[in-house]
Amino acid sequence: MAEAFRGISKIRFEGPKSKNRLSFKHYNPDEIVEGKKMSEHLRFSVAYWHTFRGTGADPFGSATRTMPWDDGSNSVANAINRVKVAFEFFEKLGVNFYCFHDRDVAPEGETLAESNRNLDEVAKALKDEQARTGVKLLWGTANLFSHPRYMHGAATAPNADVFAFAAAQVAKAMEVTKYLGGSGYTFWGGREGYKTLLNTNIKREMDHLGRFLQLAVEHKRQIGFKGQFYIEPKPKEPTRHQYDSDAAACWAFLQNHGLTKDFKLNIEANHATLAGHSFIHELQYACGMGILGSVDANRGDELLGWDTDQFPTNVLENAMCMLTLLDNGGFKTGGLNFDAHVARESTDLADLFHAHIGGMDAFARGLKIAAAIRKDGTLKDMLKSRYASWDKGMGKKIETGKMTMSDLAQYMLKKGNCDANESGRVELLENIVNEYL
Amino acid sequence: MAEAFRGISKIRFEGPKSKNRLSFKHYNPDEIVEGKKMSEHLRFSVAYWHTFRGTGADPFGSATRTMPWDDGSNSVANAINRVKVAFEFFEKLGVNFYCFHDRDVAPEGETLAESNRNLDEVAKALKDEQARTGVKLLWGTANLFSHPRYMHGAATAPNADVFAFAAAQVAKAMEVTKYLGGSGYTFWGGREGYKTLLNTNIKREMDHLGRFLQLAVEHKRQIGFKGQFYIEPKPKEPTRHQYDSDAAACWAFLQNHGLTKDFKLNIEANHATLAGHSFIHELQYACGMGILGSVDANRGDELLGWDTDQFPTNVLENAMCMLTLLDNGGFKTGGLNFDAHVARESTDLADLFHAHIGGMDAFARGLKIAAAIRKDGTLKDMLKSRYASWDKGMGKKIETGKMTMSDLAQYMLKKGNCDANESGRVELLENIVNEYL
Amino acid sequence: MAEAFRGISKIRFEGPKSKNRLSFKHYNPDEIVEGKKMSEHLRFSVAYWHTFRGTGADPFGSATRTMPWDDGSNSVANAINRVKVAFEFFEKLGVNFYCFHDRDVAPEGETLAESNRNLDEVAKALKDEQARTGVKLLWGTANLFSHPRYMHGAATAPNADVFAFAAAQVAKAMEVTKYLGGSGYTFWGGREGYKTLLNTNIKREMDHLGRFLQLAVEHKRQIGFKGQFYIEPKPKEPTRHQYDSDAAACWAFLQNHGLTKDFKLNIEANHATLAGHSFIHELQYACGMGILGSVDANRGDELLGWDTDQFPTNVLENAMCMLTLLDNGGFKTGGLNFDAHVARESTDLADLFHAHIGGMDAFARGLKIAAAIRKDGTLKDMLKSRYASWDKGMGKKIETGKMTMSDLAQYMLKKGNCDANESGRVELLENIVNEYL
Amino acid sequence: MAEAFRGISKIRFEGPKSKNRLSFKHYNPDEIVEGKKMSEHLRFSVAYWHTFRGTGADPFGSATRTMPWDDGSNSVANAINRVKVAFEFFEKLGVNFYCFHDRDVAPEGETLAESNRNLDEVAKALKDEQARTGVKLLWGTANLFSHPRYMHGAATAPNADVFAFAAAQVAKAMEVTKYLGGSGYTFWGGREGYKTLLNTNIKREMDHLGRFLQLAVEHKRQIGFKGQFYIEPKPKEPTRHQYDSDAAACWAFLQNHGLTKDFKLNIEANHATLAGHSFIHELQYACGMGILGSVDANRGDELLGWDTDQFPTNVLENAMCMLTLLDNGGFKTGGLNFDAHVARESTDLADLFHAHIGGMDAFARGLKIAAAIRKDGTLKDMLKSRYASWDKGMGKKIETGKMTMSDLAQYMLKKGNCDANESGRVELLENIVNEYL
Repeated sequence: MAEAFRGISKIRFEGPKSKNRLSFKHYNPDEIVEGKKMSEHLRFSVAYWHTFRGTGADPFGSATRTMPWDDGSNSVANAINRVKVAFEFFEKLGVNFYCFHDRDVAPEGETLAESNRNLDEVAKALKDEQARTGVKLLWGTANLFSHPRYMHGAATAPNADVFAFAAAQVAKAMEVTKYLGGSGYTFWGGREGYKTLLNTNIKREMDHLGRFLQLAVEHKRQIGFKGQFYIEPKPKEPTRHQYDSDAAACWAFLQNHGLTKDFKLNIEANHATLAGHSFIHELQYACGMGILGSVDANRGDELLGWDTDQFPTNVLENAMCMLTLLDNGGFKTGGLNFDAHVARESTDLADLFHAHIGGMDAFARGLKIAAAIRKDGTLKDMLKSRYASWDKGMGKKIETGKMTMSDLAQYMLKKGNCDANESGRVELLENIVNEYL
Repeated sequence: MAEAFRGISKIRFEGPKSKNRLSFKHYNPDEIVEGKKMSEHLRFSVAYWHTFRGTGADPFGSATRTMPWDDGSNSVANAINRVKVAFEFFEKLGVNFYCFHDRDVAPEGETLAESNRNLDEVAKALKDEQARTGVKLLWGTANLFSHPRYMHGAATAPNADVFAFAAAQVAKAMEVTKYLGGSGYTFWGGREGYKTLLNTNIKREMDHLGRFLQLAVEHKRQIGFKGQFYIEPKPKEPTRHQYDSDAAACWAFLQNHGLTKDFKLNIEANHATLAGHSFIHELQYACGMGILGSVDANRGDELLGWDTDQFPTNVLENAMCMLTLLDNGGFKTGGLNFDAHVARESTDLADLFHAHIGGMDAFARGLKIAAAIRKDGTLKDMLKSRYASWDKGMGKKIETGKMTMSDLAQYMLKKGNCDANESGRVELLENIVNEYL
Repeated sequence: MAEAFRGISKIRFEGPKSKNRLSFKHYNPDEIVEGKKMSEHLRFSVAYWHTFRGTGADPFGSATRTMPWDDGSNSVANAINRVKVAFEFFEKLGVNFYCFHDRDVAPEGETLAESNRNLDEVAKALKDEQARTGVKLLWGTANLFSHPRYMHGAATAPNADVFAFAAAQVAKAMEVTKYLGGSGYTFWGGREGYKTLLNTNIKREMDHLGRFLQLAVEHKRQIGFKGQFYIEPKPKEPTRHQYDSDAAACWAFLQNHGLTKDFKLNIEANHATLAGHSFIHELQYACGMGILGSVDANRGDELLGWDTDQFPTNVLENAMCMLTLLDNGGFKTGGLNFDAHVARESTDLADLFHAHIGGMDAFARGLKIAAAIRKDGTLKDMLKSRYASWDKGMGKKIETGKMTMSDLAQYMLKKGNCDANESGRVELLENIVNEYL
Repeated sequence: MAEAFRGISKIRFEGPKSKNRLSFKHYNPDEIVEGKKMSEHLRFSVAYWHTFRGTGADPFGSATRTMPWDDGSNSVANAINRVKVAFEFFEKLGVNFYCFHDRDVAPEGETLAESNRNLDEVAKALKDEQARTGVKLLWGTANLFSHPRYMHGAATAPNADVFAFAAAQVAKAMEVTKYLGGSGYTFWGGREGYKTLLNTNIKREMDHLGRFLQLAVEHKRQIGFKGQFYIEPKPKEPTRHQYDSDAAACWAFLQNHGLTKDFKLNIEANHATLAGHSFIHELQYACGMGILGSVDANRGDELLGWDTDQFPTNVLENAMCMLTLLDNGGFKTGGLNFDAHVARESTDLADLFHAHIGGMDAFARGLKIAAAIRKDGTLKDMLKSRYASWDKGMGKKIETGKMTMSDLAQYMLKKGNCDANESGRVELLENIVNEYL
């Protein structure tokens, strides 16, 4: 096929002084940081849906981006052609991973069987391109939210047939993910929630969701898929309220349904802020509970109340993300998936490159900053010394279960008052972080 | 002592046509609704802190309310005098319950021992007044957030001594709650969170909080306190982020620390909305998980980002609250505690009565509406029929664990597509609810 | 043509006890309230775009509603057929007004000339149906936001040609509005704002918007259109920031560009809350400045950050809206336009009726409550007496310009301190309002 | 008097490699940027209220900071001693300006006369210290919000006597500001708004506010005060709604009351975000309208709904602020006033230095980045070329008033469609900005 992105050649690292805006100024894939290549730390992934299926349409306006390679049809041939464009993009950009929904890559048919056949055909093209380029599938997923059948939910639909269809669709998507060697599979419950409580039985719906994921675990074992399962928190949008509202809600749910061993979280920055948490909070909470799996790397606008899915260009936030990851051993199966789209107003094909380059460079800077912070050790030392009273004496006894409440009451009655607190040094810590920027 | 609220006599039910604004128009304590007295359904409680310790001060201005009975001192005598005023208020208002923090009722001393002695003295006065009036303690709690010692947290403080002090304070508050026959004890973790993640170890702090509550459970058994334990979700304020951020976060935490048998939730309307959830969502989620315990009945302003703690005058919302409660068997140990304060600008003593009357009347209307909705049955029938596909056939098989994902895939491959969805009838349902108003 | 809404006959007033959910329980069009028919007070209008062009699509899912009369084409014939359906709906519902955008009623052509011809053809059908039914046009408008040409703005586009196209489109839409006897014309600047300040010259863009509206005023005079011009505040969505962000921003803008005589505001409830104001605030502010023109009657969800455009079923809020309107002399040219859509999940044709009936009944109740509040006079008297110090003595002197700052300083130095404040009686006032519900 | 900040000597510029955290790494006051000293560009000011009167108290907890120099009394002697501490701080920090409210520096007396005498005594001490150190008053203001007399508003109080007291207080504060050579005077209407519309007459209250400011303008002329007047937008907190809600609302108000010549705005970052605008939006809007006066330099937390008043450590945001200022000619009378306080948990005296150093360094970096962006010119060129169609041909004719709507309609009817739009290049622009970081 013809080259889709004519005039754009492979994006290369040219360093911060380059005036070429189609180059990396910071992301140098083979550069070693803490003993590992940048590319292995960051595991960048392109989101097929945004980059190849996004059109610029929004609730108040129609598509703004024309994709010259697209024939406008819903055919499998068009889908397969699009696959080739996508891999040209991955190669030129130099990412090693991508993610997709079943319905992004292949058209929905009249029946489930036809949809599955369509998916199989496109999957073959994906596999060929993976083999040709070495690009891998970070995770696959099934789109259980766009089709009107899912308007009341998928696993949580009041119509049991919809649950069945969703299960069938997940079974297939999981099989295709396995076929493509995907290292993970994600469940985002975009319609698993409600518009109004007046027509909703929360308990019954959540139990159905639990059952659905248990079935998926069984199926995974049955087909021998070894990838990691993720659920992805989001509090609202499209529904008024989604059950997987944040990392804590997911953790509650996983515990409640016996799913803690089989699931980790895919944390998205913009979903975190929609839930009223900082991105870093959600990452650290997930790490604390041992369930951080992968990251949807984007950026929201905290003054807007919807998912803006902007590219993650905030260097300091990326640094805090990478610091959290490095402190927790880095990605195992997950990666940084750019669940982000260019602005509706960014209509040049080159904008797709600029957007990803911006995110990759900003994360590369974040990684280097995080490594510098770790090397220096100041932040870690300050944190450790802040909790020093827990590493000895009475604090240690409490942690090791040797003090009862009565013991503590006696101790404090005798002492009268507790030892003085130290300053939290909030501003000093903020200044120290700024020094690394 | 002299009457504090001169000119205000006992508030009586006078019906909706009364022009007396110091009467109940809807709350008729002995009126039977669904076989039980209104007063037993609603179990109204006055919050000692707001009504007797609130001054109208806010972050930008000083106290606006003068309490003629208060001598301005921090003495035990002044505290005991205040107890009498409070019980005059409870009696005149006709509520059967109140709630307090240790430091609301009695002054903090120089040492823990002195604080405990102060509390004991005041507790005796409280007990006497309870005996005299029949008013009961709904729940007690310890204030672990106002004193500077708790600035970095109480159970989650980096200073282990603060944990010890908090434990000692809780032990005492629990003992006093037992002494006063309280039917519950609440833990609100107002400082159990962080200002900045730069100085915070989330995992370690949450583990300390878990340990703290485990110690409280042991202590409860040791002293033979039979009341119900509650934790109370709130996402932020005073801290930037609190661990018990919403009902789901609490449920995750309770499961994670083996506390599910000993704790229920105290859901507050304004805390729900600060967390981005509706009040009714939090109630129904808690009911769904079997952990609804008690309610802090107030109202927030969803356009403001802080806890406004207004009195709950939204009749329809109260109706939905009572409907949820009735559908779940009503309160066992909990009640409707008015965790609400008059506006800073409401400076008359009579305003304290107007505020509580407004909340009580609005909840009485809510109760009657909820009972009418239940009697009519339309909403329940519509809800039941919406999920009818789960009560038979394949839906039932899924619920009872008889279908695998492969079974479902086969089923749907054969069928091709799922049965049509029915309308969610969102607006019709909203209209139906409005009919009861 | 065939009846579109078969099985649904004209909606009639049957009173609150009717069990027929396709009847009005409160809206009785000819009932006299304060000397005027309910229908004349409320001036209900159906929004053509939501009710006849809405499909249930949202950013995460496709259309859910099938309209059996629609042939799926973009033809003028289909558009004209749709007009007939719309008027069947207006008649059955018993509303006297409707509103439309040019592109709602007629398809966009390949050129402006073709678009104008399409619009003319459909306008003829609209005029015929208006004549047949007596339904009138409340206001018309041009859609300057959906087409990709407007992606950077219309009047505020960096591309001057887009300004020209928008002007041409407005000229035509205004002429058609005149042809149809519309009593107003609305400008909603949905794309008049920005995505990022990095590519935006606020001053120049706002000046262009001012010029655009000045041109519209000149054109209005030139063609002899007598209807009222409105601008409609909204702070964001679809853009990151819109210039007409709220009533105050519009008032600033109108003053700045010499437009105060020719424009009033069309206040929308959900836009108010997106801007952080209550709906009633925006109404009262606009009344205070003398610029309230019309109302887009809907309801937002304050816990969601986007325009949910729900039907206005909050009786108390509607009462406050009608109280504000009655206190300011009611609508002159404006009305209550239901800029609202059924939920994506509400897929029955009957849901369109339920939704409008719910809004109309809730506003009829609001009107009756407002009239009762005015008849009773308590609220007004309390408000008047609150400002009594301004109607006499020094207050009056200040208002009439007879005191300088020095005079006031002398006065207060002598007096030492000001007279005591009275309680704001916030909760009592809330209770009083609840009495009317 | 004794040195208050023992162990802390004058903070000096030591460059980015210094390990001394009590040094500037970027702020080098005499360094020339665009032909002017950094200190002249930035005009840093310390906010007396936060830094010398803030205690760490919050709505849920009491003071955490002890100020060893404070005797705890409300005496004038204590106030004068505090002045000396403040100037020691200013000197050591190396700021050239400060700002104060009347009641920050001197205690309120029993009568207005006594309050004025107190203020005069302290003003003398301030003047002496100004003379000794060369530190100047950026602006003064009167606290019209903390005292209970202002609970219903000051200029907008329903009690006319309160208006009179406020006027008297402003007259005095303005005179003291003049005495101290202040280059400006600020009006922040913290209580000029409402808790509930039920007891509020918006129009009358806003007219009173207009009258109040007109009186202030007259008084300013009368006493010969030459400083600039500012009003300061804030949407809410402490009230439910404030009239000066954002820059646009202020602009509407100033125009409406004939105050445009005498007032500029004091824009605060955290107030902007509370109003739903970005800080930079408010700055650019004010510049566009020609009313930017001064800046309250702080930082909010967009996930929290109250004024957190954190120190402005966001380098990129500071750069955009300085870029806006440089593009508009920089400060005339205004400056960067740190309306910011340390965290409640930051209890060391050194934290006051760290906080200010962090803000100053982050703004110094912002200034240097802004200058680099301007020197490079890329952003400006891209912006200019984006609007190129307005600098020639039809665009120019529109701007210069030579086209009517009919002309534009004819033009576009002939042309058929408008020229194609160019990409908005949103992500490229974001990348370019990141290059300067």
